[in-house]
Amino acid sequence: MKIRKATIEDCPGMLELIRELAAYEKAPEEVTVDPRHFEESGFGEKPVWWAFVVEADDASSIPLIAFALYYIRYSTWKGQTMYLEDILVTESMRGKGIGKMLIEKLIEEAKEKGFKRITWQVLDWNEPAINFYKKFGAKFDPQWTNVILDL
Amino acid sequence: MKIRKATIEDCPGMLELIRELAAYEKAPEEVTVDPRHFEESGFGEKPVWWAFVVEADDASSIPLIAFALYYIRYSTWKGQTMYLEDILVTESMRGKGIGKMLIEKLIEEAKEKGFKRITWQVLDWNEPAINFYKKFGAKFDPQWTNVILDL
Repeated sequence: MKIRKATIEDCPGMLELIRELAAYEKAPEEVTVDPRHFEESGFGEKPVWWAFVVEADDASSIPLIAFALYYIRYSTWKGQTMYLEDILVTESMRGKGIGKMLIEKLIEEAKEKGFKRITWQVLDWNEPAINFYKKFGAKFDPQWTNVILDL
Repeated sequence: MKIRKATIEDCPGMLELIRELAAYEKAPEEVTVDPRHFEESGFGEKPVWWAFVVEADDASSIPLIAFALYYIRYSTWKGQTMYLEDILVTESMRGKGIGKMLIEKLIEEAKEKGFKRITWQVLDWNEPAINFYKKFGAKFDPQWTNVILDL
């Protein structure tokens, strides 16, 4: 397996994995992101997201088997932090340490860029994910509720 | 009262209000953001946050009475959205419609920039805030738990 920074050519493969995750999270119809806008937001003049992708060693039929996508969050308490929007390993490749490899890469990147913390969110029923994150020393803060105002 | 975009000169006044909010949220010691880094992140070469501030009409002793600070979030489901990091009205000026004015300004800005939604978080015990957000038609999603990895 090979881990590297995402390029614009990875966008279709990443979107495929995003749709797979949405199905797992029981909300496939929620993915309405426009593929061109996705590319532009990552690789245009003013990028707002960055990502690492994982490719299989062999000539697999799946172009990408995993990725992690983050953006910079600005906390008025802590300054710039890394917000991990998605971390995703395709179902057939789970349990092989790929998620661990991605998190270690993100920690390395966050330290390089001077971010003091990485934050993200987990669904409260997703026990395998919660247990996985605990291994890295992550803390959980369920006091906050998400508020959404659709325009 | 006057609402306008924040400038670099507003940073000290904003930080004062940020500390006031942290005290209200029972975590004053958590504000460790560096004032210079705060300015640089909002008004340097690559801004990562934007804000609106509210000034009092009269020559008040408080330079700023309220502000709202946001950054751009990248949702792999929805594309670019506005994330409202802080909305804050100084205690003595609450109940005068200033929060409403700020939210209306944010909605206007979000529409102008093509964001499809505004998201933020609220502490689950903060009933006055929850009731206030409901008036704008906000939805609440308590299924997600925040995960924090300090580096």
